[in-house]
Amino acid sequence: MRFYIPTNIYVEKNCVQHHAKDVLALGKKALIVTGKHSAKTNGSLDDVLKILQSGNVPYQIFNEVEENPSVETVACAAEMGKAFAADFVIGIGGGSPIDAAKAIALLIANPSETETSLYTPKDLKTLPLLAVPTTCGTGTEATPVSVLTNRKGGFKKSIACKIFPTLSLVDGKYLAFAEKELILNTAVDALSHMVESYLNSQSNVYNRMFPEYGLKIWEQNKNALLSDAPIDEKLYENLMLASTLAGMSIVHTSTALPHGMSYDLTYNLCVPHGKAVGYFLAAYMKACEKSVPADVRTILDLLKLKDVAAFAEMVKAMIGTYELPRATVECFAQRMCENSSKLKLAPCELSKEDVWEIYRESLIIN
Amino acid sequence: MRFYIPTNIYVEKNCVQHHAKDVLALGKKALIVTGKHSAKTNGSLDDVLKILQSGNVPYQIFNEVEENPSVETVACAAEMGKAFAADFVIGIGGGSPIDAAKAIALLIANPSETETSLYTPKDLKTLPLLAVPTTCGTGTEATPVSVLTNRKGGFKKSIACKIFPTLSLVDGKYLAFAEKELILNTAVDALSHMVESYLNSQSNVYNRMFPEYGLKIWEQNKNALLSDAPIDEKLYENLMLASTLAGMSIVHTSTALPHGMSYDLTYNLCVPHGKAVGYFLAAYMKACEKSVPADVRTILDLLKLKDVAAFAEMVKAMIGTYELPRATVECFAQRMCENSSKLKLAPCELSKEDVWEIYRESLIIN
Ligand SMILES: [Zn+2]
Ligand SMILES: [Zn+2]
Repeated sequence: MRFYIPTNIYVEKNCVQHHAKDVLALGKKALIVTGKHSAKTNGSLDDVLKILQSGNVPYQIFNEVEENPSVETVACAAEMGKAFAADFVIGIGGGSPIDAAKAIALLIANPSETETSLYTPKDLKTLPLLAVPTTCGTGTEATPVSVLTNRKGGFKKSIACKIFPTLSLVDGKYLAFAEKELILNTAVDALSHMVESYLNSQSNVYNRMFPEYGLKIWEQNKNALLSDAPIDEKLYENLMLASTLAGMSIVHTSTALPHGMSYDLTYNLCVPHGKAVGYFLAAYMKACEKSVPADVRTILDLLKLKDVAAFAEMVKAMIGTYELPRATVECFAQRMCENSSKLKLAPCELSKEDVWEIYRESLIIN
Repeated sequence: MRFYIPTNIYVEKNCVQHHAKDVLALGKKALIVTGKHSAKTNGSLDDVLKILQSGNVPYQIFNEVEENPSVETVACAAEMGKAFAADFVIGIGGGSPIDAAKAIALLIANPSETETSLYTPKDLKTLPLLAVPTTCGTGTEATPVSVLTNRKGGFKKSIACKIFPTLSLVDGKYLAFAEKELILNTAVDALSHMVESYLNSQSNVYNRMFPEYGLKIWEQNKNALLSDAPIDEKLYENLMLASTLAGMSIVHTSTALPHGMSYDLTYNLCVPHGKAVGYFLAAYMKACEKSVPADVRTILDLLKLKDVAAFAEMVKAMIGTYELPRATVECFAQRMCENSSKLKLAPCELSKEDVWEIYRESLIIN
């Protein structure tokens, strides 16, 4: 049973400003990695730039990280960082820019490595990395995970190198600029991280601390997420805290089947990550309930829900449903049945029929 | 709100053997720091030596760490380490050897520092450090704390430098060689770490994860601790896990008044640490109950106890009582009333009268 989360993580309002000294201690030349827009809109980029300017730290901005970031994009940003001689990296945004920033920090620190070697396990040093999350789902600020898409290879998966951010500054105020739909999608992603960590063959009495505590914190936001009203500002920090704890939940277990199943929807069909994962969550719980009913009960109790059906209703109210042609679903299900590395993360053996049943329950098949 | 525990911590049976590779990755020449006997008796030293021998890692053993380790002892061991050119340090035993090993690792890495400068805050690098705890109370394997006694100065307190072990290998099997009394004392110490973290001005919704989860784990050992029978082997790992979680509890809050009050008893009167802390615990809870009744209630619920009186009974059954002359108690209480750095860690303002009341309730005054 292991515990290892070496990142220095602050969760608080005006976090970036408060910890300017920690940011400036990371290095002398920064490569900033963001998506196209949100880091500008929500003020997070400005908060970071003010600190770099106050410390006379030169920086360059790579703002072309797409959703489902690709190894090609990562390689391109790494070239920019090398040319600039960046000695630390700052990832700002949702999961995509921060996941990308991890791999970029690795490639800058190891100029002889190429983007394709990211999937090969190696013990490599990386540049110091600051993560500033601006959505409440990914948890990547607290994990060593970086999920990248290999366009040439036609797949999406976690890279082999484990890269924890050095410092993560988590401020709920950036959520004020997010659409409610984005908050819902990412909150469901956080929920999935905890459920998939708890219902996981790698789950144990040590690492259950994170999902048990995190689910309790997440539940406090449940009614606000379900209501039609905009999210109250007072909840922002709690949403971020739940998301960070959800990230910690998967550090020692990794995610399980719903995440594995989601990749076909995100990568092939452009469904947002949180939604794509959330569709499969209730049916996964139901499949696990047969063999580990007490664990499913604990999750439901922490969420103050009566049964898995109520859980399914809740998630549906947050992210809706998704329709797909039968032939496509069959193709996805078939592929998952062959994915032994994901299947073995379920807390019980799942038959081919069980896997099919999860797909049938999770998607509307037309 | 901060989270920062960079130590790589494994809790499992035969932990040292299982993680030989991690141990050997720490360095090329080891200084081993232990107390006089227990590391030999319980097999922990042998387990470590086998790994060093298997990797052809030269080592020297400093086995003269006393209870309440002194800066003088630390300096002496550091000289040994420097002469040997040790590049990593291994602390094996209870809190004393591991706390000492932290400071020794620091002094070897910084030859220009002296033992007296340990109490001055400085940003210093330290040698890699392995901690192998063999009692179930200190939690030092998961904290940056090192409490040292300065004999010349006549005081005992935490040194200013924060030193997390690099790797901690926590194996309950070593408890098989501990007297029941030692297990009781150290288990009460672990309990104190969680209670003092929860009833603490630095406590927040982020760091409460540790004591909330840890108290639940600790409670599972309660009946066995209270029974007259020897501790069942099956509980060893759970006792160790509770102790490690209790250590994590104080990382972000530090301990509070009971620990502050205990130092006079340990340092001046040779009372074992866990006992000395435990005497003050129930009265501290009672003093806090007036202002934070819900927090006290949460602790009692997690421990499945009716009220603070039941808590006091439980602790008394585990560690007994302690008698002191009135004049001595008055002298201790007076000193605590002037210790503003500890007093400000209470979750509420405590008057001089409150502090006196804790002493009156905690000790039998003759
Ligand atoms: Zn996810
Ligand atoms: Zn203690």
